[in-house]
Amino acid sequence: MNQQETIVALATPSGTGAIGIIRLSGPEAITISNSVFKGKDLTKQPSHTIHFGSIADGELVLDEVLVSIFVGPKSYTRENVVEISCHGSAYIIESIIKLLIKKGARSAKAGEFTLRAFLNGQLDLSQAEAVADLIASNSKASQQVALNQLRGGFSSQLQGLRDQLVQFASLIELELDFAEEDVEFANRDQLKKLIYEINKVIGSLIRSFELGNAIKQGVNTVIAGRPNAGKSTLLNALLNEERAIVSHIPGTTRDTIEEVLNIQGVNFRLIDTAGIREATDAVEQIGVARTMEKISQSALLIYVFDADVISNEELQQDIASLQKPGINMLMVANKIDLLDQTAKLTHLQAQGLPNFITVSAKQKLHIDELKSKIYTTAIKDQLTGDETMVTNIRHLEALQKTEESLIRVLNGIDSVTSDFLSMDIKQALYYLGEITGVVTTDDLLEHIFSKFCIGK
Amino acid sequence: MNQQETIVALATPSGTGAIGIIRLSGPEAITISNSVFKGKDLTKQPSHTIHFGSIADGELVLDEVLVSIFVGPKSYTRENVVEISCHGSAYIIESIIKLLIKKGARSAKAGEFTLRAFLNGQLDLSQAEAVADLIASNSKASQQVALNQLRGGFSSQLQGLRDQLVQFASLIELELDFAEEDVEFANRDQLKKLIYEINKVIGSLIRSFELGNAIKQGVNTVIAGRPNAGKSTLLNALLNEERAIVSHIPGTTRDTIEEVLNIQGVNFRLIDTAGIREATDAVEQIGVARTMEKISQSALLIYVFDADVISNEELQQDIASLQKPGINMLMVANKIDLLDQTAKLTHLQAQGLPNFITVSAKQKLHIDELKSKIYTTAIKDQLTGDETMVTNIRHLEALQKTEESLIRVLNGIDSVTSDFLSMDIKQALYYLGEITGVVTTDDLLEHIFSKFCIGK
Repeated sequence: MNQQETIVALATPSGTGAIGIIRLSGPEAITISNSVFKGKDLTKQPSHTIHFGSIADGELVLDEVLVSIFVGPKSYTRENVVEISCHGSAYIIESIIKLLIKKGARSAKAGEFTLRAFLNGQLDLSQAEAVADLIASNSKASQQVALNQLRGGFSSQLQGLRDQLVQFASLIELELDFAEEDVEFANRDQLKKLIYEINKVIGSLIRSFELGNAIKQGVNTVIAGRPNAGKSTLLNALLNEERAIVSHIPGTTRDTIEEVLNIQGVNFRLIDTAGIREATDAVEQIGVARTMEKISQSALLIYVFDADVISNEELQQDIASLQKPGINMLMVANKIDLLDQTAKLTHLQAQGLPNFITVSAKQKLHIDELKSKIYTTAIKDQLTGDETMVTNIRHLEALQKTEESLIRVLNGIDSVTSDFLSMDIKQALYYLGEITGVVTTDDLLEHIFSKFCIGK
Repeated sequence: MNQQETIVALATPSGTGAIGIIRLSGPEAITISNSVFKGKDLTKQPSHTIHFGSIADGELVLDEVLVSIFVGPKSYTRENVVEISCHGSAYIIESIIKLLIKKGARSAKAGEFTLRAFLNGQLDLSQAEAVADLIASNSKASQQVALNQLRGGFSSQLQGLRDQLVQFASLIELELDFAEEDVEFANRDQLKKLIYEINKVIGSLIRSFELGNAIKQGVNTVIAGRPNAGKSTLLNALLNEERAIVSHIPGTTRDTIEEVLNIQGVNFRLIDTAGIREATDAVEQIGVARTMEKISQSALLIYVFDADVISNEELQQDIASLQKPGINMLMVANKIDLLDQTAKLTHLQAQGLPNFITVSAKQKLHIDELKSKIYTTAIKDQLTGDETMVTNIRHLEALQKTEESLIRVLNGIDSVTSDFLSMDIKQALYYLGEITGVVTTDDLLEHIFSKFCIGK
């Protein structure tokens, strides 16, 4: 990773648009740009200014452009940065980038601008990762979580706790130097208290992952039930479009159908499935197996039943077979438009079903209520707007390993010698440091930044 | 067209990229942006400066952004312009645009930024059209022609000639006021001289359209010949890839195959066709009919024949049936690798075929020579680098109508009365003015700018 090189890439999506932005970063960003720019002398312009002129290869003018100058360290990467705003033709963009490379820049790798921002201390590692999440965000909730992380998120909090742990580690190291004298520089009670505090924070971050990840990816929501319960009709009613084919013939849906529904800023991946029953043919058998697999991967299960025809026994049987730990379940009594006697409805309610709602998918009755019930069942009160949330599996793993190391410290604190204690604390420090990037390896960095888009 | 409104649109292509640019233009561009910006007071910043901060809807932060300020008239539209550079998530971009609309901006129509640049005198109409051409340019030649037009091109030259014609028109108008006195204010010989001069310029611009348009769209180049002459093999050799299926069975190609080949900066649309012969079945008959249609639409016809087997009579017969006025023809003697006796080759050359080249498509012999021959046959010496060229059918039509009106003036100059003369000159002025936009109608403007992309 040679930061002496000046890198260049298209920062806007490829495709035809009004303008395209070509970004350069590195010590020679301004001089290289200046060497192909006809207009003012860019090397003499103050930071954060914009200049009109043309880009020319010798006498051949390639385009008329606006050039933005950012003099390091007042830039995204803390290096000199130039952004060239040109006409959005793929041909023109390619010609300009080729020319800049001829003049000494090289093509940026995926994520290399943000990597430099990290290496130059502009962002810590978890903030850098938030940049990629922010670009990929597709709902209010995922955008807020990413933005929160970009603006500091949990990393400053973890950093503070880690700094305290570093102090204890060095005191215990000191004890090793005086091992024969059997002194205790590090107060064991204070150390325990600190570890409890750290584990409390880490524990709540670990617990936030499930929801955080669901918000980032969309909450997996499976619609399941017996054939002809009206699952596809319910999907269509929720989406307010005729997405799934519906008929009165049981078993109309064979393939699973996935659609995204945004409720209160959170994306739910609605998955309509084949009805569950003893399969009568091979195709249906595959469909039912797929349904069961989808249910096991879901975060929220919407169990739909035909309130008009289902018996108590069938209902209890379905609930028993579908309810699984870790999967939130919402029961939807469909076709209430067919219940002319309120008796049955009362009867259903009397059974004390948990998390129960009545709807008519066909008549679009209670659909808004259902949406808000879907939201509260999946999200509960965990989303208040300011929460720091772990959405990144790398962070989760580092947090889990930190927790394990710290539990080992706690277990040994009164019994093992300082050198063992020191080893476990160092392990915990290592994993904590990995999150914010205090501790990194080249492999880790490459793994993280290679998932970025070019130009960021 | 209310220019009091402030317009907003995404200026970069949609899709996920590192950054997206949202552009505003209009009297309130800076104040609207400032109302959602947390950072410096944007209304107090000088033109052509860039400011870091965040975009917030009340307390809810949408993104961290860079805002570029252009204070009118020093901007693309000559109005106040703001460009917001945000993270390239479609969700974030949409949220920010919605917020700006809530604060008083409205969605820009296609081409509305450039329309305002035209209405405010930043660009004339032919320059504004060049902006769209520049964005669509996909080869060196099409980009150079568009850039030339954007930088003034022929419009300044036409404008000068038009101004002189206006003087004559007003002198002739004056004659009308003194009609009973039979005076002549406008010198008829000078008027003739001016019209000759204008028609010379217009004539050469009209003639440039054929090539100009071919350069903009790509030169239609049909590869035709008898079955099994090696047309598809030749296409593959030119493209240097196995694009078309080839076999030794005559009539392998049925559908026409189109691929773009760039030679010396000019795009050629190569069209491989079904071999021409008496069709043996219905499918082949359709194929042959399509070939003949493609030939009639081509600008360049590459006639390929099997030098090993074709007879003199067949060759002469093919040439006679394919040669059409307005279509440049290039003869390619293929399969010269099979000619063990040079006798036949000498014989072919002795027939004095015009524009003739020998190749072996299979062995890739003389392919570079063929490419350069394709270029010179189509382009001749018409492309020198600085040429002003008409590429726009609207301009061509206006030029043709101008020419017709001026010929009417010339025809009547010594015989008709001043009032008829004046009418024809006014017609010519009208059409000339349409090109640069001195004369416009709302219909014309809408027609031109509706073809732009949004955000330009």
